[in-house]
Amino acid sequence: MGKILIGVMGPGEQATALQIATAYELGKGLARQGWAVLTGGRGVGVMDAACRGAKEVGGMTVGILPTSDRCTLSEAVDIPIFTDLGNARNNVNVLSSRVVIACGMGAGTASEVALAIKAAKPVILMQVEPGIRDFFQQLTSQPIDRAETVEAAIEKIYHCLAAE
Amino acid sequence: MGKILIGVMGPGEQATALQIATAYELGKGLARQGWAVLTGGRGVGVMDAACRGAKEVGGMTVGILPTSDRCTLSEAVDIPIFTDLGNARNNVNVLSSRVVIACGMGAGTASEVALAIKAAKPVILMQVEPGIRDFFQQLTSQPIDRAETVEAAIEKIYHCLAAE
Amino acid sequence: MGKILIGVMGPGEQATALQIATAYELGKGLARQGWAVLTGGRGVGVMDAACRGAKEVGGMTVGILPTSDRCTLSEAVDIPIFTDLGNARNNVNVLSSRVVIACGMGAGTASEVALAIKAAKPVILMQVEPGIRDFFQQLTSQPIDRAETVEAAIEKIYHCLAAE
Amino acid sequence: MGKILIGVMGPGEQATALQIATAYELGKGLARQGWAVLTGGRGVGVMDAACRGAKEVGGMTVGILPTSDRCTLSEAVDIPIFTDLGNARNNVNVLSSRVVIACGMGAGTASEVALAIKAAKPVILMQVEPGIRDFFQQLTSQPIDRAETVEAAIEKIYHCLAAE
Repeated sequence: MGKILIGVMGPGEQATALQIATAYELGKGLARQGWAVLTGGRGVGVMDAACRGAKEVGGMTVGILPTSDRCTLSEAVDIPIFTDLGNARNNVNVLSSRVVIACGMGAGTASEVALAIKAAKPVILMQVEPGIRDFFQQLTSQPIDRAETVEAAIEKIYHCLAAE
Repeated sequence: MGKILIGVMGPGEQATALQIATAYELGKGLARQGWAVLTGGRGVGVMDAACRGAKEVGGMTVGILPTSDRCTLSEAVDIPIFTDLGNARNNVNVLSSRVVIACGMGAGTASEVALAIKAAKPVILMQVEPGIRDFFQQLTSQPIDRAETVEAAIEKIYHCLAAE
Repeated sequence: MGKILIGVMGPGEQATALQIATAYELGKGLARQGWAVLTGGRGVGVMDAACRGAKEVGGMTVGILPTSDRCTLSEAVDIPIFTDLGNARNNVNVLSSRVVIACGMGAGTASEVALAIKAAKPVILMQVEPGIRDFFQQLTSQPIDRAETVEAAIEKIYHCLAAE
Repeated sequence: MGKILIGVMGPGEQATALQIATAYELGKGLARQGWAVLTGGRGVGVMDAACRGAKEVGGMTVGILPTSDRCTLSEAVDIPIFTDLGNARNNVNVLSSRVVIACGMGAGTASEVALAIKAAKPVILMQVEPGIRDFFQQLTSQPIDRAETVEAAIEKIYHCLAAE
């Protein structure tokens, strides 16, 4: 059957303190449901925070890295996948996630949300302005949802999984 | 030295008649400058039209396909590259283009523009509303330009190449 | 730090009964050391058997799939990574494994052993004739070892990990 | 329709003088048939020599590079494709070639021959010992041919193209 992997995407070096705090709480919340947290695997920003949160409560974490070496790996990743694909690995992140959550928005995150829409994956946006949701919504007829809280995001994930 | 490859990205099956007409004229204009036209290689929408335009005036065309088989290949592609990478090939499209032009906007195109920004590639938008430019502009400090005409796009490309 | 992932590669549909039995015992043996078993993730041949063996003794399994859909996934995979990269995913298998074990030999497995050598990853061969080892050995100055038993393979892995 | 692309694979930095001389003559011979020469694109060894040979007689050359930057690019490549996929690009080389010719053998070349066999692509070996052919032949029921001369290789390619 496999674990349920939930992807958490977001800025790396440019992440804000609020995005990092949200990603940390999100990682905790996802792990408490028994879901594995999948990120881009590097030890910075949203990806690192989501993994640290998940580990804090005993969860499992998967990191899909753009490089082939360990030096950028988050210490909170249990299962590191070294792709050496550069940003082409963003599509692997998305396809391996049952639901994609973007926490904050940068160019890499935008590519992941767009690739998720292309692959018809459920997308939930956190810590983004309404205009960003509107941009992505016009690319697809599937609903692109924002979640204000971790609890709301988790509720939406349950809906997405039930609708698979 | 190699040919100068200019990428033309845009909707496939969902392309509008105006986007297709623009892409065709763009392909002609790029080829007349001696540049090769690079697209996603399938025989539909913007990618097909840009290649057909380039061939109409004797230009060279390169198609980077998501599959490994020939059945979706545009007849106007001179050099087909079969990646079998799915949408991960979008990053190859972008990295192989000296300048990325998006003509119209869909989920795949949005991923390519975002990946181009991530790679610090020059991006020119055609046939998109101002709000779409604003969305991408907030992801980067590099200028994201719109071009109203093929001539304006070509002038911008010359500026980008001169600034490399 | 992350789990230690040991890759087990080998034939899928063409695997022999002996290769499958060996892979199953190998999966058990690797899991008993606390290592995660990484395979190509499909529900056939060596990859399926190694994962089933690991699960039999409570181990953890990672599958790196060539497709984006779940229909070929082994039921014994805990962490499925859907790449949609076709056989380009073979390089991801290799780079994500601390040591690569080939159990039997087919075209896909040969590509993985060659890519492992290219990446300077330790390689251990099981269930292959001496001439196959000799072929790969001439491609590299690193020692390419054969292991006759699961115990011997595990001992070699400890040596490889100690030498990292 | 597209150009016919013939792939020439072989050692880079480790290529011997005889392999380089053979690849140069091969590039000339392929280009004289009107075929484009596809290589790994770097400015060393067999890939560089095959491209230089093709350019010497006015042919066209395509290079599929493992990186995203121009610094390793062969000067004899007309159409550079920058993948940033590392050695996962070896599968793109193979899938984009109508016939794969290996001139000499290293770990990267071995991965390409194995991936070509996996994809049922015709393979021709040059500058390799008979035992190497025997190794690959046991992986497949398709005939794996050696060619002693450029003329013999070209004749075999015509047979392969006629059989498609």
